[in-house]
Amino acid sequence: MARKVAVVAAGHAKFGKRFDATMRELCAEAYRPIYEEGITQDRIDASILSYAASQFTGQGAGSALIADYLGIDDKPHLRVESACTTGTASLRAAWGMVAAGLYDVMLVVGVEQMNRVSSATATEYMSQAGDMRWEYPYGISFPAFYALMASRYMYEYDLPHEVLSKIAVKSHHYGAQNPKAHLPREVTLEEAHNSVPIARPLNLYDCSLISDGAAACVIAAEDRVKEFTDEPMWIKGIGAGASAMMVQDRDSLTSIPGAVRAGKAAYEMAGVGPEDIDMAQVHDCFTIAELIAYEDLGFAEPGKGRELIENKEVYHDGKIPVNCDGGLKSKGHPLGATGVSMTYEILKQMRGEAEEQSRQIDDIQLGLAHNVGQSGQFVNVFIFERGW
Amino acid sequence: MARKVAVVAAGHAKFGKRFDATMRELCAEAYRPIYEEGITQDRIDASILSYAASQFTGQGAGSALIADYLGIDDKPHLRVESACTTGTASLRAAWGMVAAGLYDVMLVVGVEQMNRVSSATATEYMSQAGDMRWEYPYGISFPAFYALMASRYMYEYDLPHEVLSKIAVKSHHYGAQNPKAHLPREVTLEEAHNSVPIARPLNLYDCSLISDGAAACVIAAEDRVKEFTDEPMWIKGIGAGASAMMVQDRDSLTSIPGAVRAGKAAYEMAGVGPEDIDMAQVHDCFTIAELIAYEDLGFAEPGKGRELIENKEVYHDGKIPVNCDGGLKSKGHPLGATGVSMTYEILKQMRGEAEEQSRQIDDIQLGLAHNVGQSGQFVNVFIFERGW
Repeated sequence: MARKVAVVAAGHAKFGKRFDATMRELCAEAYRPIYEEGITQDRIDASILSYAASQFTGQGAGSALIADYLGIDDKPHLRVESACTTGTASLRAAWGMVAAGLYDVMLVVGVEQMNRVSSATATEYMSQAGDMRWEYPYGISFPAFYALMASRYMYEYDLPHEVLSKIAVKSHHYGAQNPKAHLPREVTLEEAHNSVPIARPLNLYDCSLISDGAAACVIAAEDRVKEFTDEPMWIKGIGAGASAMMVQDRDSLTSIPGAVRAGKAAYEMAGVGPEDIDMAQVHDCFTIAELIAYEDLGFAEPGKGRELIENKEVYHDGKIPVNCDGGLKSKGHPLGATGVSMTYEILKQMRGEAEEQSRQIDDIQLGLAHNVGQSGQFVNVFIFERGW
Repeated sequence: MARKVAVVAAGHAKFGKRFDATMRELCAEAYRPIYEEGITQDRIDASILSYAASQFTGQGAGSALIADYLGIDDKPHLRVESACTTGTASLRAAWGMVAAGLYDVMLVVGVEQMNRVSSATATEYMSQAGDMRWEYPYGISFPAFYALMASRYMYEYDLPHEVLSKIAVKSHHYGAQNPKAHLPREVTLEEAHNSVPIARPLNLYDCSLISDGAAACVIAAEDRVKEFTDEPMWIKGIGAGASAMMVQDRDSLTSIPGAVRAGKAAYEMAGVGPEDIDMAQVHDCFTIAELIAYEDLGFAEPGKGRELIENKEVYHDGKIPVNCDGGLKSKGHPLGATGVSMTYEILKQMRGEAEEQSRQIDDIQLGLAHNVGQSGQFVNVFIFERGW
């Protein structure tokens, strides 16, 4: 009924501590390669320009600011905000407007500038996505939410911490080969396992980074796709799910109910199953989150996710490669950019454009992005299909 | 191509200084009448739950919090943020997802809680929707932006301030008859004209209110509409427009270019013109904004808007009734709620459900909502059609 929609181009700023660039400049850096491919401002009908938290920069209503800086301030725009799922929530909203025919071509940019404040302050700002009456005042922060999940998972499934560290080792292995990564260096299992505690049982190498960065993509309606590329990536499945606000209201801490629902909805819309997916970008805000994602998405049975990392099935040459760009752990996690960065990486891998052969995944027909907000309150799953 | 979408129900919290209610409770108050009409949580597929500024409550990513409180935390949701256009931007995004077939039935809630801080602090928070590098640090606030426009308009068209005051008198005349209004009382022309200056030439009665409040509506796809109501209001036209970030980059201060573009796009999509509109809700954040809206929307020629108010053509029994609910001026302006409140009012008027006959507009086939963000950086125009 609705029109098919494809991702036709994507761009990515360098993630890191970007004291050299303002928020608007990070967006321009992400849009620049798209512009250089010939998708100039006049070819864009409308945009969604998003960041998660206005606290970091103080800027409210920033889509106007970004649109102005990108030279598309005369075209409709808005900001979507869904904590760490801001990028894919923006893509979901944009998809709707294009699929329904309001616009033919939309630019989606996700950005976050997190390092103008201290990491303690950044952690506090992120905590404000918890319940400001019933959670935040009692001091719980995001590492603590995920530490609760990790503790419970380790208890229920008798999981040693080293398995989580193996996920960190994988992330850094691939991040080291990604020129956009915030922390592009290898770590050993010993380093990862023995690093300083952040919120027990999670230590430094279980936690993703506080990064500045931006990513961008352009989507187009089916009848316009050919004007932009011969290698479109179709949006085949979109699933969104949500969970109770507070973790104590959930039946289980070893699975995120919204992620299970989002995955099912995306598979159903795409008419495929987890066994059909050739690569996945999952939301590894903490190592435990990646492990749980394997199971929530159906790549492994509950409690069996560890086999995928222990047998290296989630490496680029394994059964289901996951986060072969370094993930949130090594590539970085500028909140609003993350979901768009996942989309960028899948397009890049599908087109065979990974920088190093040692991280290029072969022959991708279907890629999946799994983007989680807060401690699982909202989740978006996208399934993308190679269109050439 | 896409499915038709209708507003099938709407609800509205009392606007005002709502120290008795938290943000989530305001949302519940807006949803309650919808629930009582039988649109229970299980009948809603997904939601957009939005507020403009997280500074007021400190709450980030609050759609999860609101979804949880409303009992729809297991359904997809997100927050849209576009300053004062947050409500209609949410409706535009929701329309896309329903029209394109991702969901059949969506709840849209707009809310703002602005009075937990002083009005000086509230004004400062709103100023942060200006450019945080090039505008805010130099002290310009929203009354000042609109004072620039008013000064220029008064100079170019030789407009006496009393004409602006007449708009305030009309707003308060209708607000006094609206039980949801923040400041439901009449004002005289003398009071309005002689009130204390805020940012010359604008005085107290030229400025809208700093309000707490929420409004909600449910939209449904054409094939599901009959399950919910016999009196649906179809979304017939959607136009969005934008303008340069900074007012000095605009060609004119007496018109908002994004509003002109948004209006044209909405008329074009609906296949109607300004002469076909039976009532309008326009964004009177300041009296000058309402006057400019008459012209930007084509109800009057540039410079001639004053005739509409002077001849009372914008009263409920005039040629083009505008803001017969009191508008942002007397009903109030809880930022994220405003666009949804406009939608609520048009549905209510169309159904003949205004509280007082002296504000009920006769025989409405087409209603228009005009919602402006910041100093015109983004504008949404909706045209709604009676469906019975």
